Amino acid sequence: MSGRIVCFGELLLRLAAPERQLMLQSPAFEVHVGGAEANVAVSLAKFGHLAELISVIPENPLGMAALGEIRKHGVDTRNILSAPGRMGLYFLVQGAMQRPSEVIYDRAGSAFASTQPARYDWQTLLTGADWFHVSGVTPALGDSTANAAMEAVRTARKLGLKVSFDGNFRPKLWQAWQGHAPTILRQIMSEADLMFADHRDMAVVLETDFAESNTETQIQSAASAAFKAFPHLQKFTTTIRVQHSVDHHSISAMMVTRDGQVHRAPAIELTSIVDRIGAGDAFAAGVLHGLTVNMDDRQALCFGLAAAALKHSIPGDFNLLGIDDVAACVAEERYDVRR
Amino acid sequence: MSGRIVCFGELLLRLAAPERQLMLQSPAFEVHVGGAEANVAVSLAKFGHLAELISVIPENPLGMAALGEIRKHGVDTRNILSAPGRMGLYFLVQGAMQRPSEVIYDRAGSAFASTQPARYDWQTLLTGADWFHVSGVTPALGDSTANAAMEAVRTARKLGLKVSFDGNFRPKLWQAWQGHAPTILRQIMSEADLMFADHRDMAVVLETDFAESNTETQIQSAASAAFKAFPHLQKFTTTIRVQHSVDHHSISAMMVTRDGQVHRAPAIELTSIVDRIGAGDAFAAGVLHGLTVNMDDRQALCFGLAAAALKHSIPGDFNLLGIDDVAACVAEERYDVRR
Amino acid sequence: MSGRIVCFGELLLRLAAPERQLMLQSPAFEVHVGGAEANVAVSLAKFGHLAELISVIPENPLGMAALGEIRKHGVDTRNILSAPGRMGLYFLVQGAMQRPSEVIYDRAGSAFASTQPARYDWQTLLTGADWFHVSGVTPALGDSTANAAMEAVRTARKLGLKVSFDGNFRPKLWQAWQGHAPTILRQIMSEADLMFADHRDMAVVLETDFAESNTETQIQSAASAAFKAFPHLQKFTTTIRVQHSVDHHSISAMMVTRDGQVHRAPAIELTSIVDRIGAGDAFAAGVLHGLTVNMDDRQALCFGLAAAALKHSIPGDFNLLGIDDVAACVAEERYDVRR
Amino acid sequence: MSGRIVCFGELLLRLAAPERQLMLQSPAFEVHVGGAEANVAVSLAKFGHLAELISVIPENPLGMAALGEIRKHGVDTRNILSAPGRMGLYFLVQGAMQRPSEVIYDRAGSAFASTQPARYDWQTLLTGADWFHVSGVTPALGDSTANAAMEAVRTARKLGLKVSFDGNFRPKLWQAWQGHAPTILRQIMSEADLMFADHRDMAVVLETDFAESNTETQIQSAASAAFKAFPHLQKFTTTIRVQHSVDHHSISAMMVTRDGQVHRAPAIELTSIVDRIGAGDAFAAGVLHGLTVNMDDRQALCFGLAAAALKHSIPGDFNLLGIDDVAACVAEERYDVRR
Amino acid sequence: MSGRIVCFGELLLRLAAPERQLMLQSPAFEVHVGGAEANVAVSLAKFGHLAELISVIPENPLGMAALGEIRKHGVDTRNILSAPGRMGLYFLVQGAMQRPSEVIYDRAGSAFASTQPARYDWQTLLTGADWFHVSGVTPALGDSTANAAMEAVRTARKLGLKVSFDGNFRPKLWQAWQGHAPTILRQIMSEADLMFADHRDMAVVLETDFAESNTETQIQSAASAAFKAFPHLQKFTTTIRVQHSVDHHSISAMMVTRDGQVHRAPAIELTSIVDRIGAGDAFAAGVLHGLTVNMDDRQALCFGLAAAALKHSIPGDFNLLGIDDVAACVAEERYDVRR
Amino acid sequence: MSGRIVCFGELLLRLAAPERQLMLQSPAFEVHVGGAEANVAVSLAKFGHLAELISVIPENPLGMAALGEIRKHGVDTRNILSAPGRMGLYFLVQGAMQRPSEVIYDRAGSAFASTQPARYDWQTLLTGADWFHVSGVTPALGDSTANAAMEAVRTARKLGLKVSFDGNFRPKLWQAWQGHAPTILRQIMSEADLMFADHRDMAVVLETDFAESNTETQIQSAASAAFKAFPHLQKFTTTIRVQHSVDHHSISAMMVTRDGQVHRAPAIELTSIVDRIGAGDAFAAGVLHGLTVNMDDRQALCFGLAAAALKHSIPGDFNLLGIDDVAACVAEERYDVRR
Repeated sequence: MSGRIVCFGELLLRLAAPERQLMLQSPAFEVHVGGAEANVAVSLAKFGHLAELISVIPENPLGMAALGEIRKHGVDTRNILSAPGRMGLYFLVQGAMQRPSEVIYDRAGSAFASTQPARYDWQTLLTGADWFHVSGVTPALGDSTANAAMEAVRTARKLGLKVSFDGNFRPKLWQAWQGHAPTILRQIMSEADLMFADHRDMAVVLETDFAESNTETQIQSAASAAFKAFPHLQKFTTTIRVQHSVDHHSISAMMVTRDGQVHRAPAIELTSIVDRIGAGDAFAAGVLHGLTVNMDDRQALCFGLAAAALKHSIPGDFNLLGIDDVAACVAEERYDVRR
Repeated sequence: MSGRIVCFGELLLRLAAPERQLMLQSPAFEVHVGGAEANVAVSLAKFGHLAELISVIPENPLGMAALGEIRKHGVDTRNILSAPGRMGLYFLVQGAMQRPSEVIYDRAGSAFASTQPARYDWQTLLTGADWFHVSGVTPALGDSTANAAMEAVRTARKLGLKVSFDGNFRPKLWQAWQGHAPTILRQIMSEADLMFADHRDMAVVLETDFAESNTETQIQSAASAAFKAFPHLQKFTTTIRVQHSVDHHSISAMMVTRDGQVHRAPAIELTSIVDRIGAGDAFAAGVLHGLTVNMDDRQALCFGLAAAALKHSIPGDFNLLGIDDVAACVAEERYDVRR
Repeated sequence: MSGRIVCFGELLLRLAAPERQLMLQSPAFEVHVGGAEANVAVSLAKFGHLAELISVIPENPLGMAALGEIRKHGVDTRNILSAPGRMGLYFLVQGAMQRPSEVIYDRAGSAFASTQPARYDWQTLLTGADWFHVSGVTPALGDSTANAAMEAVRTARKLGLKVSFDGNFRPKLWQAWQGHAPTILRQIMSEADLMFADHRDMAVVLETDFAESNTETQIQSAASAAFKAFPHLQKFTTTIRVQHSVDHHSISAMMVTRDGQVHRAPAIELTSIVDRIGAGDAFAAGVLHGLTVNMDDRQALCFGLAAAALKHSIPGDFNLLGIDDVAACVAEERYDVRR
Repeated sequence: MSGRIVCFGELLLRLAAPERQLMLQSPAFEVHVGGAEANVAVSLAKFGHLAELISVIPENPLGMAALGEIRKHGVDTRNILSAPGRMGLYFLVQGAMQRPSEVIYDRAGSAFASTQPARYDWQTLLTGADWFHVSGVTPALGDSTANAAMEAVRTARKLGLKVSFDGNFRPKLWQAWQGHAPTILRQIMSEADLMFADHRDMAVVLETDFAESNTETQIQSAASAAFKAFPHLQKFTTTIRVQHSVDHHSISAMMVTRDGQVHRAPAIELTSIVDRIGAGDAFAAGVLHGLTVNMDDRQALCFGLAAAALKHSIPGDFNLLGIDDVAACVAEERYDVRR
Repeated sequence: MSGRIVCFGELLLRLAAPERQLMLQSPAFEVHVGGAEANVAVSLAKFGHLAELISVIPENPLGMAALGEIRKHGVDTRNILSAPGRMGLYFLVQGAMQRPSEVIYDRAGSAFASTQPARYDWQTLLTGADWFHVSGVTPALGDSTANAAMEAVRTARKLGLKVSFDGNFRPKLWQAWQGHAPTILRQIMSEADLMFADHRDMAVVLETDFAESNTETQIQSAASAAFKAFPHLQKFTTTIRVQHSVDHHSISAMMVTRDGQVHRAPAIELTSIVDRIGAGDAFAAGVLHGLTVNMDDRQALCFGLAAAALKHSIPGDFNLLGIDDVAACVAEERYDVRR
Repeated sequence: MSGRIVCFGELLLRLAAPERQLMLQSPAFEVHVGGAEANVAVSLAKFGHLAELISVIPENPLGMAALGEIRKHGVDTRNILSAPGRMGLYFLVQGAMQRPSEVIYDRAGSAFASTQPARYDWQTLLTGADWFHVSGVTPALGDSTANAAMEAVRTARKLGLKVSFDGNFRPKLWQAWQGHAPTILRQIMSEADLMFADHRDMAVVLETDFAESNTETQIQSAASAAFKAFPHLQKFTTTIRVQHSVDHHSISAMMVTRDGQVHRAPAIELTSIVDRIGAGDAFAAGVLHGLTVNMDDRQALCFGLAAAALKHSIPGDFNLLGIDDVAACVAEERYDVRR
């Protein structure tokens, strides 16, 4: 793999009730490490890329454990800082059947959210890298992280890196500190070459509506608006998810390019879903992989969708599979035991 | 919530092989607390009602643990007695695919079954309550519990409570003490305002057959017979279950009222079932809730069916979800992660 | 049950990542005992047969534990030898959805594979028995086991036992010691009355191709070739598996007899598969059972297919169900809880 | 048991690494509910008292689960409030041998700490009660809880309740909001009849030193100072702990009364300690029990010490044993299996 | 090993709270199979003897699982009957420190206790055997088992087997059916060659007191009385246990022979006890082993004591160690890792 | 920390029976990663050193998982190779009380043992490093690893690195390939500056006896012989272990220097041992740390001994504690909960 990809975001601990139980139905939590950008970095490392996470962990064993977990999977952690503050957490009840999964975020006051933008020397951190990735979660955490993200994407562009941005719009996070999402996100998107986003993200950011009659045309319309608003943007891509029950989804994907091409990756049927969280990040990593190894856009989209689909089969936030596993899924090889 | 609802029945421990294993395939049991009427009481408490269980536990740590478990969920346990005798148990092997679940009951000689009817002062226990609920399991346990149940429903009616009865016909339990089910159940049903039962229950109780060509007409015919036989009965309701495999059912529901109205709640598809036990009790609690908060009959039926459907997604005997969760299922809201 | 059935093969430990996790995603293995012929022996013992395994375990606690496990299930272990060498292992990652299961074999140098053929006194071991069963795994393990298997089937025929052989072709095992599979397997098949095999097995053994347009005709054509090549062969049977995803298969079965009859057992839909490994061995044991208790061929085939289907619902390599459970599946009885 | 005992404090979740592992050495937490005053309330309820906890839980499933857990054990939870904010947590690594246990508190911003004092109507809450208990943790959490605690003890005294206070001095909590512990604690102690404290607590509160040559005389001297400073104080009591290793302590206890009597409960040897947390609270509950059932001071002290000792044998924060269990320990009955 | 040893007693399931927890502190039971005589049979099988258990299991999967467990360990189960009735259970809370372990027996109405003596054809069952062993638990279960035990020992003597009896006096079991223990036990002891018993057992059986000043002289005096009362008795042996805490015992042993010799096995210090249950049965099996392989009395006693000591280190009721392990303990070999 | 420390050895998976159970007493293994030199590298990384492991993993998920585990803890894994072959394993039964732990090695034919010495380019691998560490396990694995180890130490000396060697003599490994340990080990020791060894190691290597009357003088005598035989050797050090039971050891340490000084670190009492494996490696890492940060010899010895002692409190092969934790143990700080 050529090049180094830098991601910027928070590491979280997921504390989950085991085996489809409700919260504390039995006195145990299963623990996973996650975080939107960390998920992307882990998947890229598993694909063989030099993937680095810029983040801040609290100065305690929880932070060290989270850092160790992504280092285990091959992510470069050398520039992760530590600081006072708490570990960001989320509590998860995995749903089943007609009962939706529930997440309780408990990340306010985290070491990452509390860190001043000045602690990141982006010029140094990004020099020599090829790609910078961040999602909408990072600027949503507060004034400090919003400013850090904006400075990061500007420096990245200045240094000639490609920039990708994943919408991941979370209203509750913005409300908590009364940040004005459109203003901030527009500045970040202005520097992006590649966006993972759909019509709902663009409606928020551009403060408009996309009232077309079906999802695909809404997405095309949102992409057009995005290309108009953001001069550097080259590709606008998203998954499309249909949910029959908590355990049974269909997932397809679309990519629109600045020159008006529309690519579609056909729907994959997802039954007996194991763990849905992180599928969007797996998609992002899959598309990033495809584009950085010179797949054409449609191949990259299909690779990304297969990665997203496979993520549903893996406990935890990370897509831990390698290139061959994803390629086999794209090729729809048979599903019997590999001996 | 208005009013206090009193349930009468045995607390059981469920000892279950973990993770779809056969009996003692590994040396562990998962433990849950259950019992038909206790399940109803827990669900009602979770819906916000003042729900009380009248029962008897053995004078040992097992009994105390079972009591504690329903108290944890908000059931009023102040009138639960303790007595010599053993804890009622059932062993469960959860089925899968084409392999049915198996229950081994081990409840003979329990403290509850051994308690003399005179220990319950129904006049005192029921004064001030609004509703009394019992199922066919309680009278099936022996002469003592049959007499206690009959006295309870008579006192309830005398004191002006509404009375509901859930058929739950278990031939093995009746055979064990050679009780004559029809005689006893008819006396209980004579005091009921609301019955959870189908044509098979009524065939046993009225010692007749309902030979109509399909399930819906059998149920309507059984309801007519019930209204004729039991003068206080106002509503006759049941779920209808179609089983494609152990993990995949469809469930719908029907209610017939004394004035001849027939309400139907349309089928809900249940795939990847987590735990089927207690769904009937969840239905009963859902309908009871609907009727006591002044839903109309059809709304109450749909609420009950949604509660029954959701129960399949929860490990253990109890439906632990609240009103909002059930209402969301009735409304068929989307199934994505709630953040 | 009449008669004694002798199986010959290796006992293995399966070390599996728990709960659909990837390899060592959490620091634990679930352990099961298996092995193609041991699986057949356990199932036959559960069906009530006198089933014996001839094998070799290492002289250590792992070997003793594996032996104890099949003795627990009623297999006669009195002639299992112990010898220096290691325990055969396989590591398993259970797949899910579009992610296939993966097996890492780690059985080279096992006590079984290292044992000289002279240690088995087949004349004594088989005298008084009625049936001998072996699969293609045993001769694939090396020169010693290949010779032992060939001597065993010859002695069995000489002593008047029926001989069954299950193809189970594993190219990697043959490659490891550069054994010439066709030569050896043809000698074993020459002594077989009953073969569990399909067109792919026969293509290897007869070094030919079966290029018919669909699976059923390929199998018929392979059966014809087998009857021509192997004079004692009476029945040629196999399951046919269609895989929609890792969790969802359809399985049917076919039997062709020397006199040209073709029996089919119609497809069973397998959703929410628990554990697919050992289903072929469960099929073999089911058919063997049927034929030894005088079912007709079609009944035996259906019994075998139901056994194979049910195996998918049981964790581990063994089909631990009894005759009644399989018969209920053949009869498509309802799937509700048995109380 | 006569009388009702009201405790005031925060409910916490303990998230602990299992089986003497380090933090996240395996990806799981064991969960227990605790909190200094909740621990006292649970133990009192297990002793048969009407024990109530006044607290605030967050409006989420974590809060409800914590409340349910103490309700399970019989604590009266009817006046527990819910409010926005997070659940107080602490992470625990259980030590072993020469490796100390480590606690990471993560309770800043909790619903309890954020609740305004005005939400507690102490006049109503305490009317009809006999005893009020609070510890030094509650006022240490911030201005709001400090004010609430001060108002509570004043109201308690006014209404004629006995007041007990357990030092539990935690410097880190006070530093976090720069509260001046001596000023606040002196006001609370001024209303106390009974104090669980030692010379280190008094040194902080009275801003002095107790430089006597051994622990017992330091405690006596501290008690004298306390009686001088706090006019209502009748009894001053504490455990004395000697630590040979993390798994092996000796624990004794002392009580000094206003009239100058000194009672000692002789040392109990604690080897193979299971869980040391909550032992101080178990001591407090034991002494409170003794004093409210009219044991003499020495008996109450010995009962408290036995309760503290037994707590070390129970996983979690709570002493879940009953009066008979503690009495048997006081009587040094034999330790063989009770059948 | 020469000879076949037949044991007669009930198989029980132990349902135990995990990891020093109190009853149902978490919702799981660990399951072990046990029973006084079954424990002896398993240990003898592990020592290489032909050990058989005569028993009755219920006709359900619990009974089959219990049978399978001892068959796994090499016990001959061919004459174990099945019958209607329930599985005998006991619930266990493992103690710790100053908190004793607690057993709740739940074995009334078991298949074993309900079986008529006529179902055992002792003449056939014991022909060809060399030794018969039973404990005081079997006759304590009711009239039927008492009669069966008495007939068994008489037949054993008639057929020339050695007979051993282990006191195991359990007052609660006798009280439950108002059996007169002394009458029945005297008849059994009259046929015994070897008794595992102490002064407390003999006090019950001979309805007298042994008021000597220390345990050793009490035991010698009880032995003298036993030799006087029971003409066939040759050896009287027991362990002597001193309990410092639940986790720390000292255990020694004594044997008195009819010719007046007294053998002592010196105390072994037991710290960090893992599981104390079944140690008496391990002692019995150890002594039986020693005597049947022609150790002298003192060697047999020391072997038995070492077996009893080692049992404390093994989870569950069974001593699963072999001869070499016990011999190494007798020889006090070093305790470092064996590689 | 100054400098880079390179270790050379095999990564192993430990498969251990849980909770003091015997082998496969329940169907699960707990998995840890270990290996003598890997253990040293992990501990050094936790102490803050640049610690690298040179090793070979099999080309499969087991190898990747093992590599990931030490990378998680901060070891530099960039030069770890992968190759065909199997993963080295060892099975562990943790002992208790008088029952010793047992290890079954299953590492023959591993990828590491099968790798040709030519694959390691020591000149490149060691350039820029400061210290090289290897133990007696590496050369014991076969001709290839022995030659690689010899070339490594020679290159290290040539490049000016310090060399340390840990005896770890394992006769079974040498016997398996009939390697002549003394010849090979003498060549390695000839290049060592620091040796972790005792009189038993030196007796093997120098083919002599150290018959002094006590352990300390034997060690001093062995050290003298070592200094005479190996010209570069500066320090000879070892722990001294006394075993009272499997759970209770005392451990002290001694260091002898070329100039004749003898340092002693006084005994630490180890009760309630959690996991004894890896303590020797923890000692080596502790001493290495001390010497590389300019502690004097006695301080380094005490630091090493404290590290070894603390390792006994941690599940798994690694000492995962940091410098402060070890320093606190050296300082004998108190053992209460750190909050």
